[in-house]
Amino acid sequence: MYYIGIDLGGTNIAAGIVDGEGKILLKKSVPTCAEKGAEYVVKAMSELVIDIIKDFGISFDDIRSIGIGSPGSIDKKNGVTIYTNNIDFKDMPLRARMIEYFGRNIDIYIDNDANCAAWAEFVAGAAKGVQDAIMITLGTGVGGGIIVNGKLYSGFNYCGGELGHTVIEKNGIPCNCGRVGCWEVYSSATALIRMTREKAEANKDSLMWDYYNEKGTWSGRTAFLAAEKGDKAAREVIETYIDYLACGVVNMINIFRPEIFVVGGGIANEGEKLLVPLREKVKGQVYGNVVNADRVPQTKIVCAETGNDAGIIGAALLNE
Amino acid sequence: MYYIGIDLGGTNIAAGIVDGEGKILLKKSVPTCAEKGAEYVVKAMSELVIDIIKDFGISFDDIRSIGIGSPGSIDKKNGVTIYTNNIDFKDMPLRARMIEYFGRNIDIYIDNDANCAAWAEFVAGAAKGVQDAIMITLGTGVGGGIIVNGKLYSGFNYCGGELGHTVIEKNGIPCNCGRVGCWEVYSSATALIRMTREKAEANKDSLMWDYYNEKGTWSGRTAFLAAEKGDKAAREVIETYIDYLACGVVNMINIFRPEIFVVGGGIANEGEKLLVPLREKVKGQVYGNVVNADRVPQTKIVCAETGNDAGIIGAALLNE
Repeated sequence: MYYIGIDLGGTNIAAGIVDGEGKILLKKSVPTCAEKGAEYVVKAMSELVIDIIKDFGISFDDIRSIGIGSPGSIDKKNGVTIYTNNIDFKDMPLRARMIEYFGRNIDIYIDNDANCAAWAEFVAGAAKGVQDAIMITLGTGVGGGIIVNGKLYSGFNYCGGELGHTVIEKNGIPCNCGRVGCWEVYSSATALIRMTREKAEANKDSLMWDYYNEKGTWSGRTAFLAAEKGDKAAREVIETYIDYLACGVVNMINIFRPEIFVVGGGIANEGEKLLVPLREKVKGQVYGNVVNADRVPQTKIVCAETGNDAGIIGAALLNE
Repeated sequence: MYYIGIDLGGTNIAAGIVDGEGKILLKKSVPTCAEKGAEYVVKAMSELVIDIIKDFGISFDDIRSIGIGSPGSIDKKNGVTIYTNNIDFKDMPLRARMIEYFGRNIDIYIDNDANCAAWAEFVAGAAKGVQDAIMITLGTGVGGGIIVNGKLYSGFNYCGGELGHTVIEKNGIPCNCGRVGCWEVYSSATALIRMTREKAEANKDSLMWDYYNEKGTWSGRTAFLAAEKGDKAAREVIETYIDYLACGVVNMINIFRPEIFVVGGGIANEGEKLLVPLREKVKGQVYGNVVNADRVPQTKIVCAETGNDAGIIGAALLNE
C-alpha cells in the first residue's frame, strides 16, 4: 500500500507518493495560484493527486490514505481548514470537498504544516522512534511541532504548538501576531536577515557587504559566510542571533524535556556552525543543569533530516 | 480500597487517607526536620503512614497504593528523588527505602510536588475529566503541571513542566535558577510582594502602608486589599503584576491550547479579582484571537479547587 502527502504552500502545492517508511517514490508540484480563489486551490490539489496516481501507474485502490499539511488553523477531527492567511480558506471542508471531487471515499487526514514537518522527523527523520520530541522551523517565522508519547500534540482545539509566539522579550519588537517580543521576532530567518542588515549598515567595512553585493540581497547565510572569514561584525550578528535562539530553546526544554529537539528550516542548513554554539549556550541555562547534568539524561539538539520533503512525508503518514 | 498520599514539604510532611474520588478521609502532619538528615525524613514519612493507617482503623491490606509528592527532580520509573534543594536527598531511593521500612511490598508512586498539585486538579478539582490541562501555582515560585491526553507529562527524563523557568524578559531580573528574566521572577507571590514593597516605598502616602503596619509585613494580599479601597499605587502594582502573569499564561496557551488553565497557589485566593483582568488581557493576546475567536473553542482560565490538600490528593491518586 502507498500513502499520498500534500504540502499546501502559499506558492506551490507539492504532492508525493510515499511508502510506509516515509520514502518519497514520486513527487510533483503545481503553482497554488491562491489569487484564483479557494475553489481553484481545492481543485488543483485534487487534480494533482489524480495526476501522481496515474503517473506512478497505480490506482486509488492502492492508496491507504491521503494527508494534507495546510497552513493556518485546522480542525483535524472534521478535516476543515478554519482559517489561513495566504489562501482564502475560511471554514473550508477540505476532506469533504476532495472526497466529492474524487467521487469515492478515501481516508483523508489534515494537519497544520508545521505539525506535518515535526511528524516527518518523527516517522522518518532525526526523531525517529523517540517518544517525546520538539521541532522548530526557522524560516519566515518560527514554526513549532510537539510530539508527546509518540503522538502529535496540538491541544484541545488543535491550535497549539505555536512555539514561535511565546514572548521572550516583554516590551521588545512587535510581532505580526499582535503581541510584542515573540521568540519568532528574534529567531526566524527573517530576524537574522534584519539583524544582518542593521549590523552591516552600522559597519560599512564589514565583509557582509561583499556577500550582499555578490547576491544583490541580504540572506540568512550572509552573516554566517562573513563570520567564517573572521568578520567581527558578522560574528556579533551570529552571537546575538544564537543567544536569542538559545533563550527560546531553553524555555521549550524546561517545559517539555524532549529526548530530541529538532531544528529545521533554512537556517538549519548551517548545521554544526549553528548547533555547536547553540548547544553550549543551552547547556549553561537548562533548569537544574548544575546539580543534575551528570545524573539526568539531557535533551539532544539536532538538525532536521527530512528537509524540503518534510511537508509531504509528514502529511502522507499522518494516519500512523 | 483506600489510597495514601504524602505531601513532602520543606517544613512539614502531610499524609492522608484518600478515597478513589480524591476525598480526604483522614489527614495528619509532622514536622519534616530536614536538618536531621535524609534518613530521619524517610523514617518520619514511613512512620506517619503507619500512624494514619492505625488511626483510621484499617490495615496495609486495605491500601491500594501510596503516592509521594516530593520537591526536586524525580526519577518516577525507579521511585527515586534525584535531587532536592530543601531536604538533603541525593539519589534517594524513596520507594525502596519505604518498602524496606514497612517490611512488606506495596505499590509506591512518586512525582514532583507541582505535578501532584496539577494531578489533584485533574482527578478531583477544576480540570476534572478534561484531557488537556495546564496548572500553575503562584507561590514562592511559579510551579507548573502539564496534563496531556489525560496523563501527567514531564518529559523523557521527568524534569519537564518547569513553566516558571521560561524567560519572558530577556536581560530582566535574575532568577534563582541562574537564568535572567524567568516568568517566576515576575509572577510568583514573591514577585508580587517585591513589587508591592517597591511601589509603597516610592509612595509613602499609599494605603498599602496601612495594611503593612497592621500586619507588620508585606504580603501577596497587601496590594489587592489597598487596590480595593481605590488606592492608585496599589492598583498600579496589581496592573503590572497581572500584565506579567498574562504574558506567561498566553505563552503557555499558545503552546498547549489546554481546555482548562488552572491557577493555584496563595495568589489564586484572590479569585475573580485576579481572574477577571487576567482573562481580559489573555483574550487580547492569544494567537489568532482576532480571526478565530468565534470559530474555535478557547481555553478556560479558572482557580484551583483542591487548595492546600492538592499535594495529598494528587499524590494519593498518582496510580490512576
